[in-house]
Amino acid sequence: MKNTFGNSISYTLFGESHGEEIGIIIDGLAPGVEIDEEYIKLQLMRRRPHGKISTARQEKDEYRIVSGVFEGKSTGTPICILIPNTSKKSGDYSSLAEIPRPGHADFAAECKYHGFQDYRGGGHFSGRLTAPIVAAGAIAQSVLKKKGIYIGTHIKSIAGKKDRDFSCLEDDIKALSESIFPVLCEASEEIMREEAEKAALDGDSVGGILECAVIGMPGGIGEPWFDSVESILSHALFSIPAVKGVEFGAGFGFSEMRGSEANDAFETDGEKIYTKTNNNGGINGGITNGMPIIFRLAIKPTPSIFKEQESVNMKTKENASLKIEGRHDPCIVHRAAPVVDAVVAMVLCDLLAGRFGTDFLS
Amino acid sequence: MKNTFGNSISYTLFGESHGEEIGIIIDGLAPGVEIDEEYIKLQLMRRRPHGKISTARQEKDEYRIVSGVFEGKSTGTPICILIPNTSKKSGDYSSLAEIPRPGHADFAAECKYHGFQDYRGGGHFSGRLTAPIVAAGAIAQSVLKKKGIYIGTHIKSIAGKKDRDFSCLEDDIKALSESIFPVLCEASEEIMREEAEKAALDGDSVGGILECAVIGMPGGIGEPWFDSVESILSHALFSIPAVKGVEFGAGFGFSEMRGSEANDAFETDGEKIYTKTNNNGGINGGITNGMPIIFRLAIKPTPSIFKEQESVNMKTKENASLKIEGRHDPCIVHRAAPVVDAVVAMVLCDLLAGRFGTDFLS
Amino acid sequence: MKNTFGNSISYTLFGESHGEEIGIIIDGLAPGVEIDEEYIKLQLMRRRPHGKISTARQEKDEYRIVSGVFEGKSTGTPICILIPNTSKKSGDYSSLAEIPRPGHADFAAECKYHGFQDYRGGGHFSGRLTAPIVAAGAIAQSVLKKKGIYIGTHIKSIAGKKDRDFSCLEDDIKALSESIFPVLCEASEEIMREEAEKAALDGDSVGGILECAVIGMPGGIGEPWFDSVESILSHALFSIPAVKGVEFGAGFGFSEMRGSEANDAFETDGEKIYTKTNNNGGINGGITNGMPIIFRLAIKPTPSIFKEQESVNMKTKENASLKIEGRHDPCIVHRAAPVVDAVVAMVLCDLLAGRFGTDFLS
Amino acid sequence: MKNTFGNSISYTLFGESHGEEIGIIIDGLAPGVEIDEEYIKLQLMRRRPHGKISTARQEKDEYRIVSGVFEGKSTGTPICILIPNTSKKSGDYSSLAEIPRPGHADFAAECKYHGFQDYRGGGHFSGRLTAPIVAAGAIAQSVLKKKGIYIGTHIKSIAGKKDRDFSCLEDDIKALSESIFPVLCEASEEIMREEAEKAALDGDSVGGILECAVIGMPGGIGEPWFDSVESILSHALFSIPAVKGVEFGAGFGFSEMRGSEANDAFETDGEKIYTKTNNNGGINGGITNGMPIIFRLAIKPTPSIFKEQESVNMKTKENASLKIEGRHDPCIVHRAAPVVDAVVAMVLCDLLAGRFGTDFLS
Repeated sequence: MKNTFGNSISYTLFGESHGEEIGIIIDGLAPGVEIDEEYIKLQLMRRRPHGKISTARQEKDEYRIVSGVFEGKSTGTPICILIPNTSKKSGDYSSLAEIPRPGHADFAAECKYHGFQDYRGGGHFSGRLTAPIVAAGAIAQSVLKKKGIYIGTHIKSIAGKKDRDFSCLEDDIKALSESIFPVLCEASEEIMREEAEKAALDGDSVGGILECAVIGMPGGIGEPWFDSVESILSHALFSIPAVKGVEFGAGFGFSEMRGSEANDAFETDGEKIYTKTNNNGGINGGITNGMPIIFRLAIKPTPSIFKEQESVNMKTKENASLKIEGRHDPCIVHRAAPVVDAVVAMVLCDLLAGRFGTDFLS
Repeated sequence: MKNTFGNSISYTLFGESHGEEIGIIIDGLAPGVEIDEEYIKLQLMRRRPHGKISTARQEKDEYRIVSGVFEGKSTGTPICILIPNTSKKSGDYSSLAEIPRPGHADFAAECKYHGFQDYRGGGHFSGRLTAPIVAAGAIAQSVLKKKGIYIGTHIKSIAGKKDRDFSCLEDDIKALSESIFPVLCEASEEIMREEAEKAALDGDSVGGILECAVIGMPGGIGEPWFDSVESILSHALFSIPAVKGVEFGAGFGFSEMRGSEANDAFETDGEKIYTKTNNNGGINGGITNGMPIIFRLAIKPTPSIFKEQESVNMKTKENASLKIEGRHDPCIVHRAAPVVDAVVAMVLCDLLAGRFGTDFLS
Repeated sequence: MKNTFGNSISYTLFGESHGEEIGIIIDGLAPGVEIDEEYIKLQLMRRRPHGKISTARQEKDEYRIVSGVFEGKSTGTPICILIPNTSKKSGDYSSLAEIPRPGHADFAAECKYHGFQDYRGGGHFSGRLTAPIVAAGAIAQSVLKKKGIYIGTHIKSIAGKKDRDFSCLEDDIKALSESIFPVLCEASEEIMREEAEKAALDGDSVGGILECAVIGMPGGIGEPWFDSVESILSHALFSIPAVKGVEFGAGFGFSEMRGSEANDAFETDGEKIYTKTNNNGGINGGITNGMPIIFRLAIKPTPSIFKEQESVNMKTKENASLKIEGRHDPCIVHRAAPVVDAVVAMVLCDLLAGRFGTDFLS
Repeated sequence: MKNTFGNSISYTLFGESHGEEIGIIIDGLAPGVEIDEEYIKLQLMRRRPHGKISTARQEKDEYRIVSGVFEGKSTGTPICILIPNTSKKSGDYSSLAEIPRPGHADFAAECKYHGFQDYRGGGHFSGRLTAPIVAAGAIAQSVLKKKGIYIGTHIKSIAGKKDRDFSCLEDDIKALSESIFPVLCEASEEIMREEAEKAALDGDSVGGILECAVIGMPGGIGEPWFDSVESILSHALFSIPAVKGVEFGAGFGFSEMRGSEANDAFETDGEKIYTKTNNNGGINGGITNGMPIIFRLAIKPTPSIFKEQESVNMKTKENASLKIEGRHDPCIVHRAAPVVDAVVAMVLCDLLAGRFGTDFLS
């Protein structure tokens, strides 16, 4: 459904980087959910650019909830969250109508929209639209926390510089959810930032890997085949700009394992059944097994770099060189982390509402 | 939609490993499509077990098309393909009702279906259901070929033993589509098979990586955000049993690249615009750019192994050991290749019909 | 979604009048539902032609459930019901490829399928496909009855000859659900049958009105706006061949009422809240209010009549006259009643599963 | 999908009568569609209250298009139309939290939303939300007109006072589309208004019937079974508040016809094939046959009346009497006409885009 995602709870995204307002509709959320405005602001703050390795464009993200909330609580009808675009410098982008930026959607958009797309700042494809996603996801995360379900995403690596692995998930996750540079090992932040700054000095950018864990999800959620939890999650995750890979549990590491290593042995304490390892990342046959859901995402380096690049003029069909002006992030890996949290929360709320009914999350 | 996938053209899957019949419904295919029965048989043959590294269960896969085809051509109304299960040995599986196989869906299914699932041979979760998928995909592939769109999947690695990379895509793809062990470098087959046989002798299994390329797709297909081509493809691909990772283009390799390396420079011959590299795997901003679509899938080792494993008794809530009987594949990587081809073809037909209308593929 | 209907529980229909098999997939039904085969047979029997005012084509409707049921209970995975076509006389229909029957889908199908449709006996458009719908609906009705929800449809009129109105809904409904000519006033059957037989003698056919009531539905089901209960029900009901009108509660009668008559006053016994009248047919603002759901359907006269009719030759683009051979029903109003029951049951199960979760109906 | 409707082109509605803003998202409209702001304003003007038989609440409906339109043309990405609520008098409605208005959604909403609904002015159920629908429909109508497809709705009757029938559809339709009281026979307006005013003087309200005709739709649109054109249209039409019946072509009149009268004979001029009558309202077997689409809707009398009514207190579970204050329409039949035009246009654009591809309407 294009810009709508979800079944029992659905999310509809709209807006452009330099349009008047961007926003999202959440439809199907249970009535009576308390809207935690502070938590929405916190998550929007996490997504906003901070410091040297982020764009200088400063958007205040002053969102308004114009429907679906009454006296501080969800009504059960569609919640519309609007965020005005205030810091627009459209002049920066005028050449994009003709010369597409390598690695960006500009040329693909031309193929699809035949020149009618709003090319300013990437238009509808802009990472700017992750702001309403983060706002919606913050509501979804609040709801999940009340059910004992917690989501945490850390920067597994930037430019090859690694964070430590998850160890005690519960503690690790809680530490991550408020961080603007979510790493598990504090020392790694400095090293990662240095790499990103080095690239920035070269007019270049860096990529990385995010790793996400979810604890508290009950078993028995998801569907066999086309609506496996991996299917639904990856569908949503690949909608985040710059995500080019998703792997669950041991992921690509499975390719060199034998079955006897890969299989997660079951164990019971006489009451709860769990697995001794979690190579399958909490999902078997597409369905949750009650263990933590674990996955990683490949984040490509920001395509907007200041180095001169080879491109073409789409109108004249001539080769052209491109030097991007404007304000850009040499690294967006850390800023993508709260977007991942948001998207995962949105998906899980939908799955739970489908499984247990529309009042379950109220 | 659970066991239904697709919008303009949808696919509905049903059946269990030891049920009476398994099958698939294809709805929305253009009228007038010639049904190439030989091609369906060829693809089903590719999926069937062959040789030492596959299960001894031999199913003839004698499918019947009971609706939607008239005088050899699609009518435009739902096509139902049925495949009877003939080689069932249900006795083999009776213990699964109580003791779940590690790495399999048995326990997750118990969480979801509360003991009512058909546990025999994995029931609805069985890889057996990929047979109707392959049959439907064969029809989809025939349709795409008429439009100049070709799909090819090779075994990138099994147990760490690698095939060569794609070089000339056109030739490579054509060679793959009829192979029962699709590798680009003939010599690698022997090495991979040896690894799988070694594991089999140990009562164990091996995993691997598949790589798929699609040529001929026009630019401008897909949607920004929630229905990006990566989203839709990964959604469908993660429904294939044992797939635990999907990456497009450079995928996880992006994490150590800089933007200047990762970005695919544009070039034109004065008519067509293309990119000099294809790190983005033919997709930018979720939309095809006219370059080949390239992605890789992590295939976990078959969870059914003959080694004794630790499990639990789900009814008595006691620890238990499990020794699987029955007929199993020590390696399913090669058998998954035609399933990937099928799933990709199904998705692309749906996307094209949505973009260009329901008669486009006729 | 073309031949698929429903969200939490979906139904996918396939087959043609003279194809090999027709059938339906039910996906999303809770696990553990007992499949009452006798009830399915009873409902199929009600739909089958009986007596002088029905077609002479006698189909035994020997259905097979080939998936999704294990040891007599639903597994929670897709249930596929197949019904073979046995009494086919394709020769009867060969002229339909060229000369469309007035009032039938033949010409519209030609516009859509460009000559590739299976024209025999109306192909996919045939009323024959209501057999699998009735089978699926019988399962849905069994499920609803366990929740205290009962559906009953009576023949409000045939050729203007009227049945009495509903009086005591509970008793009336129970009497209807097993009848092959469901009227509330026994005497009216004879009068209606006479009208139909008279038309049959003239080589003609008759139409009528069906009225359906549902008791036991809780309040608070449905959605405002696009998924109102009226929207969802009418969507499903208009898929039944020959239905050309649907009205809820007072329906078209509202057009001559004043608000003070039309509004259903509320009343309470201190516990339950109900309305004193039920002009709104149990639905306000698209949402159930706990009162019986009441609606009526206009059923057009069977378009297959033996009288000579004016038509055209679609290939030669010449005017042509048509004299239909074959076996036809001069009246299908009574046979449509169990189809209405089935469709309503399917919709309500879907709505309840969406509202209360996928296990609710188990 | 609750507040989202459509497949190829979808519409998502949000807002409450007394919330900050109401609006709609149009997703999937072809790029390059010129947005005719004057036409949007014209249609919004038609929907607004005028004169004695309408509410005194005067909303200017100053809409803003905040996304999806660039340089006056659609971009192909989601169009968000926002309309602020300015003339709110929330005090008028405070009692509705406890005492539901007969004939309104208040009680059904309480069943569904457990007291969390925004009860002011009917909240999300308010007819006020038809304003964004009309705005979206105006865009859809502009698009259709370029394809030669015209929609016109007249007041067939109010309080039993009738307009003349359609005669020359083309002329009739064009006359209707700009009228604020769309009747075919000018004289009937006066008579209908008198009836409505009489009711208003009694503190009461009146209902009526709308009849809609569409010319220019090609044959071959729609699907057999669950997505018949009747199914899709009625689904959308029953989402309009106060609609309680929908009938196509001869509709309920079919119930007293014989097949020989009801069947529409075919005729050809050697090129085009058409029917001599149009009892089927342009749809056979759920699919358009190229003839005008004709249907009628029953509109119930406005439930908001000033007469004292019997109700209950939902909190205390006591019987209560209700005297509604505030500003209300004694007749909304005429104001519903542009809403019907809008909804029909939205549906037809979706169907055409699905059939002929997403660029078809550009």
